[in-house]
Amino acid sequence: MPKILFYPDNRVVEVEKGESLIRAAMLAGVHINASCGGSSTCGKCRVIIENGKVNARPSAKLSADEVSQGYVLACTTTVDEDIEVRIPIESQMGDSRVALERELETVTHGGFLSAKSLVDLIGEFNINPATQRLYVELPPPNLEDNVSDLERLRRELNRQHGISNFQVDISVLRGMGALLREADWKITATILSLGGSECDRLIRIDKGDRTDKHYGLAVDIGTTSIYVELVDLSSGETLAKASEYNAQVSCGEDIISRIVYSLKENGLAKLQELVTETINKLIDRVIEKSGVELDDIVHMVAAGNTTMTHIFLGVPPKYIREEPYIPTATFMPTVMASDVGLKLPQGTRVYTVPSRASYVGGDITAGLLGSGVYRSEKLTLYIDVGTNGEMVLGNSDWLLSCSCSAGPAFEGGSIKNGMRATKGAIEQVRINPKTLEPMILTIGQARPRGICGSGLIDTVAELFLTGVINEKGRFNTEIDHPRIREVDGQAEYVLVWAADSATKRDIVITEADLDNLIRTKGAIYAGITTLLDSMQMQVEAIEEVLIAGGFGRYLQIDQAMTIGLLPEIDPGKVKYVGNGSLLGSRLILLSKEAKDVATEIAQKMTYLELSTHAGFMDSYVSALFLPHTDRDTFPTVMKRMKVY
Amino acid sequence: MPKILFYPDNRVVEVEKGESLIRAAMLAGVHINASCGGSSTCGKCRVIIENGKVNARPSAKLSADEVSQGYVLACTTTVDEDIEVRIPIESQMGDSRVALERELETVTHGGFLSAKSLVDLIGEFNINPATQRLYVELPPPNLEDNVSDLERLRRELNRQHGISNFQVDISVLRGMGALLREADWKITATILSLGGSECDRLIRIDKGDRTDKHYGLAVDIGTTSIYVELVDLSSGETLAKASEYNAQVSCGEDIISRIVYSLKENGLAKLQELVTETINKLIDRVIEKSGVELDDIVHMVAAGNTTMTHIFLGVPPKYIREEPYIPTATFMPTVMASDVGLKLPQGTRVYTVPSRASYVGGDITAGLLGSGVYRSEKLTLYIDVGTNGEMVLGNSDWLLSCSCSAGPAFEGGSIKNGMRATKGAIEQVRINPKTLEPMILTIGQARPRGICGSGLIDTVAELFLTGVINEKGRFNTEIDHPRIREVDGQAEYVLVWAADSATKRDIVITEADLDNLIRTKGAIYAGITTLLDSMQMQVEAIEEVLIAGGFGRYLQIDQAMTIGLLPEIDPGKVKYVGNGSLLGSRLILLSKEAKDVATEIAQKMTYLELSTHAGFMDSYVSALFLPHTDRDTFPTVMKRMKVY
Repeated sequence: MPKILFYPDNRVVEVEKGESLIRAAMLAGVHINASCGGSSTCGKCRVIIENGKVNARPSAKLSADEVSQGYVLACTTTVDEDIEVRIPIESQMGDSRVALERELETVTHGGFLSAKSLVDLIGEFNINPATQRLYVELPPPNLEDNVSDLERLRRELNRQHGISNFQVDISVLRGMGALLREADWKITATILSLGGSECDRLIRIDKGDRTDKHYGLAVDIGTTSIYVELVDLSSGETLAKASEYNAQVSCGEDIISRIVYSLKENGLAKLQELVTETINKLIDRVIEKSGVELDDIVHMVAAGNTTMTHIFLGVPPKYIREEPYIPTATFMPTVMASDVGLKLPQGTRVYTVPSRASYVGGDITAGLLGSGVYRSEKLTLYIDVGTNGEMVLGNSDWLLSCSCSAGPAFEGGSIKNGMRATKGAIEQVRINPKTLEPMILTIGQARPRGICGSGLIDTVAELFLTGVINEKGRFNTEIDHPRIREVDGQAEYVLVWAADSATKRDIVITEADLDNLIRTKGAIYAGITTLLDSMQMQVEAIEEVLIAGGFGRYLQIDQAMTIGLLPEIDPGKVKYVGNGSLLGSRLILLSKEAKDVATEIAQKMTYLELSTHAGFMDSYVSALFLPHTDRDTFPTVMKRMKVY
Repeated sequence: MPKILFYPDNRVVEVEKGESLIRAAMLAGVHINASCGGSSTCGKCRVIIENGKVNARPSAKLSADEVSQGYVLACTTTVDEDIEVRIPIESQMGDSRVALERELETVTHGGFLSAKSLVDLIGEFNINPATQRLYVELPPPNLEDNVSDLERLRRELNRQHGISNFQVDISVLRGMGALLREADWKITATILSLGGSECDRLIRIDKGDRTDKHYGLAVDIGTTSIYVELVDLSSGETLAKASEYNAQVSCGEDIISRIVYSLKENGLAKLQELVTETINKLIDRVIEKSGVELDDIVHMVAAGNTTMTHIFLGVPPKYIREEPYIPTATFMPTVMASDVGLKLPQGTRVYTVPSRASYVGGDITAGLLGSGVYRSEKLTLYIDVGTNGEMVLGNSDWLLSCSCSAGPAFEGGSIKNGMRATKGAIEQVRINPKTLEPMILTIGQARPRGICGSGLIDTVAELFLTGVINEKGRFNTEIDHPRIREVDGQAEYVLVWAADSATKRDIVITEADLDNLIRTKGAIYAGITTLLDSMQMQVEAIEEVLIAGGFGRYLQIDQAMTIGLLPEIDPGKVKYVGNGSLLGSRLILLSKEAKDVATEIAQKMTYLELSTHAGFMDSYVSALFLPHTDRDTFPTVMKRMKVY
């Protein structure tokens, strides 16, 4: 990993090859002015490369003279080797000394579960998928040996592979006679072990030897996005990935609005159609990327929250929304791909990971499996924050889960300039404590269009740390700064001026936005403390925090603690698991044992219904401050505040 | 049962109430001239009622004087009580003395398995159907007791009925949430035990208590006709029956022509559609007759020959026809009714009775079950003759089966005036040995249109006994009789003159017809002797003969022996089982144990492939005579011949 030394701060940061200089600076806590989110339109992020080579894109914002002096735009420059970079005074727009004294996220914020640790995780289970592809050569029939085709196959599967007891899909029989003969009696049989009390099934036969072509799909059905991974079931390797917005988004952004939509005439059918439409599209894409033949996909494992799982299977989610919040089922039957409209080969089954309750779904079960919480010795807090916040506390002995309606703030809802984490969303923000000027980075380094969840947390944390807002989320109206203003009787901070935004309007954060965000973070924090209280435990007892969900990608742990979204925990204990739901689905796809573990997890997990929990409301009310009513529980945040 | 005394023969016969006088005379072996098949058009069957009352339809063929003297037409008169009847000389058209000396079928030809014996048969098994309907009351959920709907149902089914381990159809879950609530948590769950290694399934839930409405369908899928019985699965009672020609008949009359049709483009799909169309029609009819609600039909068991079973399930029958005659499967999976296009309620499963080989199908398995052969101490010969003749020899210890392509003669094919056993088909024939005039009866007592299987056997037997034809099936050209003639160089006998026939053409039997029939009967006889030879047994060893199939309804055993279709066996040993296939299907519908027995039968039965059997061809060639090359094996027939 290339090392970058920033002057004049003398800060070093290690980044992945190909990382942009501006993101590296953000990571290092080095302030570079950047108004356009990294879209190379404002030309303010000029830096000088003093040593080493970079990949810099030419820019009209730089003169030939400047280029010869080593100037580049930090936002369009990527790093492949060790370099030394100087931030000229004009790009600092103020004193960066303060940054030196701030705790540095890059050093301390833990990290993603590495690719290696994923392999280790899978290593827990042997590769032993529910499907088997077996090559069989049958002696052709004659008048003496005239048993039926199926009996012949059964006999030879038993002789050659020791498999005798299985049921057969009628669809297999419909093609069997012709196929066996066209294949000259040399075929590959695909057997699916459903496990439990269900008996094995012959789900497909194919001509010739296709045993080395054995593929499956792991699918994460998110409310917003769907992820599909094409997995080689022999090697465990992922051959292709693809993701796409869940086409249901057009029917409402959050779970509740989907449930409401499902109540319309044909609403459920429409939603079901949309989700399978998206998955079908993604299947096409992984097929194209990998060059695998569709016919060699023999199984699919999907995980989603309880509502998404219901809708995907065509089961009405109606009662999930109505007190007492009852799902039709947490353990769904394995279905035929064709039963849900997926264009997978005949006989392909789809297994959905079991849920625990209406608001603790299969995505959480899969995440607990995939991240190894279920077998951890350490007391672990697993958090997945989206529209709902799901939290699980536990270890290999017990698991206690809860869910709170976090509200859509983190997904861009109910925030004036909020947006989902898509291109142009401000995802990282630093505010220079002296100048109160922001440094912003957008997704895709495009011109900023709005603020997504992690950008929102950053903004609020920075406004709080720099004293622009107080612990109640109210603006300090005594500050005289062009970015702090009042519009229609409501105070706001201008993050991006109209000239730099894609929308040609100011991008602001208002006091109403702050109220919403504080309620959201309060609910999550209260959920966490309620889990701890239920076990009569303190925050200190938590040995590991796992953060799942796309949300976590650029979430800065210390910022999350600053606003009191998370309790103060040694950031070294925090890990990002990324898409835990997908990870768990892949494990289940690869291992029958992992599937059994998922069943166990969903069965053994205790569910705490917060809406009836006596302590939850108290905790919630106490958490409606930045970082919290009880400041003593956030000593580090308090220390950091004093620095400013 | 009313007794009828016929004068001047002094013959007594017992018949069912409502039987027609002409059929009673036929049964008694009393000759009454009848040219119109019983359709009351020729007016020749005039008899005088001397004692007792009858139901006689008025006829223009009788004068007022005659009516006052007690004259009635035998064909339109039915009997409800004991009567005495005189056959006037003009209706005898000759000496009936000979009849006195003939063996009388009515006394000796055994009989149908009675209704009582069917009940006894079912009594072998307890009523224990694969489906159970269970009433469950669920406590409504609340925030404390907030398990999913399915878990709640599982819990209560376990608490209230001790049933915990079952899979659920996704279709059940799709309706479960709304149904439970609309039903105020009082429902009937329908559980299907598929048996073997398959686990139980919840296939339906319904509002309220419907446990007393538990119905199933037993279906016989014949090549020509389909029979449906609606059975009360609580009492075992049959509530309604219906039958109809298999609509596939339009695509070919026999199995082979159906297989050929299936090879056309969309041929199989068309055939499949036609058979389900017929079954759907019959379901409508039994629903209407019984007043049962369609939604309370929860299971269906069907039996058919191997080809019919393949086509019904949409499995190509192609290779059944090609040497070495291999079916795709003999044990077919249970399918969803909707999978085969049946309009039964969602979740209803269809079980098809297992076959043994390409030409020994589920109808035979069901027949062996239904007629009790599998548990008989007696050495039994089970015969089902249609286009193919299936024969099974055995008892509770062993079963040996074979099948021979009997040809379509018995179903009206390859016979000049042959027809299926439908309205207007001549089904019974007597020829007066003195006058050589025939007495014929048709199905539905309609004007004769042609000759069906039993009529054909009667005709040939009578022509042989009266010396009109010889042992090679050649006409005695020395007889000078208007009915015996030569047309285009081929001899024939006129059974019905054009004036009396519905077709306005003479109905004849030709030497070519005789050749065909002799080949057919020869194949069946050879099949029987090959079975016996394989076990090194003699005809005398057979303790019981069971004749199944619609064919058997008016088959006269002694006539069948006369032509050498059956070996000479004490007619007292012969029983008609009627539709054995339907009988067995009903048993399986009512009893899981019976289903297991059907599996055992299909597994343990040995199949003798006649086309490769050394002895079969010899036996066949020897059997191409009336009754047989070796006349000593037919002593009774020889004795009877001498009477004429």
